[in-house]
Amino acid sequence: MSVNLTVFEAFHVIEGLKIGYCNAGIKQTQRQDLVVIELANTATTAGIFTQNAFCAAPVQICKEHLEQAHTQYLIINTGNANAGTGKAGFDDAMNICQTLADFKGVDVKSVLPFSTGVIGERLPLEKIISSIPDALSNLSEGHWFEGSRGIMTTDTQPKGVSTQFKYKGETISISGISKGAGMIKPNMATMLGFIATDALVSKETLQEICSELGEKSFNRITIDGDTSTNDSCMLMATGTCKLPELNNRSDEFYEVLKAELEKVFIYLAQAIVRDGEGATKFVSIDVNKCENTNEALRVAYTVAHSPLVKTALFASDANWGRILAAVGRSGVKNIVLEDIQIFLDDVCIVENGARASSYTEEAGASVMSQQELSIRIDMGRGNASETVWTTDLSHEYVTINAEYRT
Amino acid sequence: MSVNLTVFEAFHVIEGLKIGYCNAGIKQTQRQDLVVIELANTATTAGIFTQNAFCAAPVQICKEHLEQAHTQYLIINTGNANAGTGKAGFDDAMNICQTLADFKGVDVKSVLPFSTGVIGERLPLEKIISSIPDALSNLSEGHWFEGSRGIMTTDTQPKGVSTQFKYKGETISISGISKGAGMIKPNMATMLGFIATDALVSKETLQEICSELGEKSFNRITIDGDTSTNDSCMLMATGTCKLPELNNRSDEFYEVLKAELEKVFIYLAQAIVRDGEGATKFVSIDVNKCENTNEALRVAYTVAHSPLVKTALFASDANWGRILAAVGRSGVKNIVLEDIQIFLDDVCIVENGARASSYTEEAGASVMSQQELSIRIDMGRGNASETVWTTDLSHEYVTINAEYRT
Repeated sequence: MSVNLTVFEAFHVIEGLKIGYCNAGIKQTQRQDLVVIELANTATTAGIFTQNAFCAAPVQICKEHLEQAHTQYLIINTGNANAGTGKAGFDDAMNICQTLADFKGVDVKSVLPFSTGVIGERLPLEKIISSIPDALSNLSEGHWFEGSRGIMTTDTQPKGVSTQFKYKGETISISGISKGAGMIKPNMATMLGFIATDALVSKETLQEICSELGEKSFNRITIDGDTSTNDSCMLMATGTCKLPELNNRSDEFYEVLKAELEKVFIYLAQAIVRDGEGATKFVSIDVNKCENTNEALRVAYTVAHSPLVKTALFASDANWGRILAAVGRSGVKNIVLEDIQIFLDDVCIVENGARASSYTEEAGASVMSQQELSIRIDMGRGNASETVWTTDLSHEYVTINAEYRT
Repeated sequence: MSVNLTVFEAFHVIEGLKIGYCNAGIKQTQRQDLVVIELANTATTAGIFTQNAFCAAPVQICKEHLEQAHTQYLIINTGNANAGTGKAGFDDAMNICQTLADFKGVDVKSVLPFSTGVIGERLPLEKIISSIPDALSNLSEGHWFEGSRGIMTTDTQPKGVSTQFKYKGETISISGISKGAGMIKPNMATMLGFIATDALVSKETLQEICSELGEKSFNRITIDGDTSTNDSCMLMATGTCKLPELNNRSDEFYEVLKAELEKVFIYLAQAIVRDGEGATKFVSIDVNKCENTNEALRVAYTVAHSPLVKTALFASDANWGRILAAVGRSGVKNIVLEDIQIFLDDVCIVENGARASSYTEEAGASVMSQQELSIRIDMGRGNASETVWTTDLSHEYVTINAEYRT
């Protein structure tokens, strides 16, 4: 089950980026579970990573390799996160990188490893290593769809998007894929994102764009408040288009490219929420008129994480008292109840410290019955706004997470 | 469904405290939903209240009246929380206090009001006011059990406990009741607690005891992380026993009485968790070897609130990776994974940054299959410890909260 998420199959090729895949048998299913990305020499790579204090081994290696070398390969396995695996897990991930590097005659540091799946189990190292040649054997610029399928875990659908735009007569392409459906929360998620453009961008500038857009997209989604040990979102620029190198923010092209990439980042982040474990609703929590961003996020996440708000959303019950109670316990100092307005879409449900006089149960129920809706909270104390996207809490969420390992 | 919670019916009378009750028809059921407590003139009263910024009207009034006058009556309704009801709700609660005060010829400030139930609806004022005489007509020292039933909302069972102890030849009695099953989180809950002793205690000293014990009991339980607008826990000392007044901490009797009351506070707080909405397990989260209390609580609550940990508990799945991931995202600075040990009861599951070498799935599964278990996390960085009690997240929780208003 997912909320208004369509499978995207028509990806634009990103010249200079090839994807290979195979079934390494990690998950004992017939689905592909190992994906390799190969980048042209002109490519630059940037990334943002989980803020969980316990980074998985591949994330630690990824950060180091990304900083120390020019990235040429990315290798992604699903089915096992290689997290909480200690020194042995670190060695396993390095072993995979070294095997790929040896095959291709490149430095081990030019390989970035990614893993997602169960935490705390050792990787089936032999299976992965022996499958690397299979994945390399079908590298192709046309394998974006297969890549989107190959990185799935509990996702019900592959997630991808692709777009093109023109700048100074040149056509620039962007394609991206993401995965993730649970353990999704502020500051990344059990999510992976791989986004690429054929623009030529310096590594530093690409990192700026990636960090800025990650903050507006993947760091604004939450399904269950749990932050994974493995989240990574990579932005790659293959540099194969004919435009000159973008290497500073003051270049006019910076904002143009960033705006196009932003749509892709937000689409892919929202796709994860739409496919949230057990999701039956896609909900925007818009918090306005706050003193600062921090305060707005605090209110937004408290509402987004409230099991009582989430179960009311599942039941399509306009139980605004639960929203109000969540705002009240958000920890924001000196809140004045009388200053707060709460809306379901455009229907005002709370004002002057109580239910809005214009409110009717019918109007509230009508909004709540929609698959997509917004909860808007105006705090009446400043100019800062923030939006967070989330889902409801359904029986299906409990079923999925109570049965994940069995 | 509840976890090892037995109905307590044999309450010791607390001389100087009478309980009356009736069915005011607030919830359209046949169950009693209005309770009155009458206190002797020698009685003192103390209380602790919700930290939700939006206190319900009765909580605001309660705090004022408790501070400004000698308490003689408490009046409690279920079915409606009278929260988020603005000025009108405040007037309704005052109206109830005034009606009771007029009947009994006491000052309105000697009456404390309590409400619990749906947020945001006006109280059915006429029904309550017209029922006050009914509740007053059966005031009796023997009505503790009826009182425990009369304050229930989604509770599946009434909650109460009673004990006696001897000091200097005198027998001191303690009886207490509590309610609450959801919206339970640090810093109180949708919970009400009424605990009484026949000791003679000054109001200031009683408040010290109440605050201290509340911190160790009702402020250490969490079911779903939601903090209610209405939580209140009252401690009453009727002063009818023959011991001299306790009015300072250095009196030997202070620690004796506090220790006995502590057992009652903890029993009643844990009873709320045992009857947690949809609970199938009672879980202690013990966090040790932290730098300070704040850090220990932060880790404990992050684990206790994790939907992934809670669903794993529901499934009896020793998915320790989820526990580890929750510790990692708790926000405690500079955590060293290698210093941490995690245990299920006495079974070590994590050490040296990975699964403990001695661990077997069988040993983990055996602990997880129990109805009661502890998750112990030793952070290896100091001497502070804290314990929080919580439950799992089951289908039943979703069902209850998705259907509460319907």
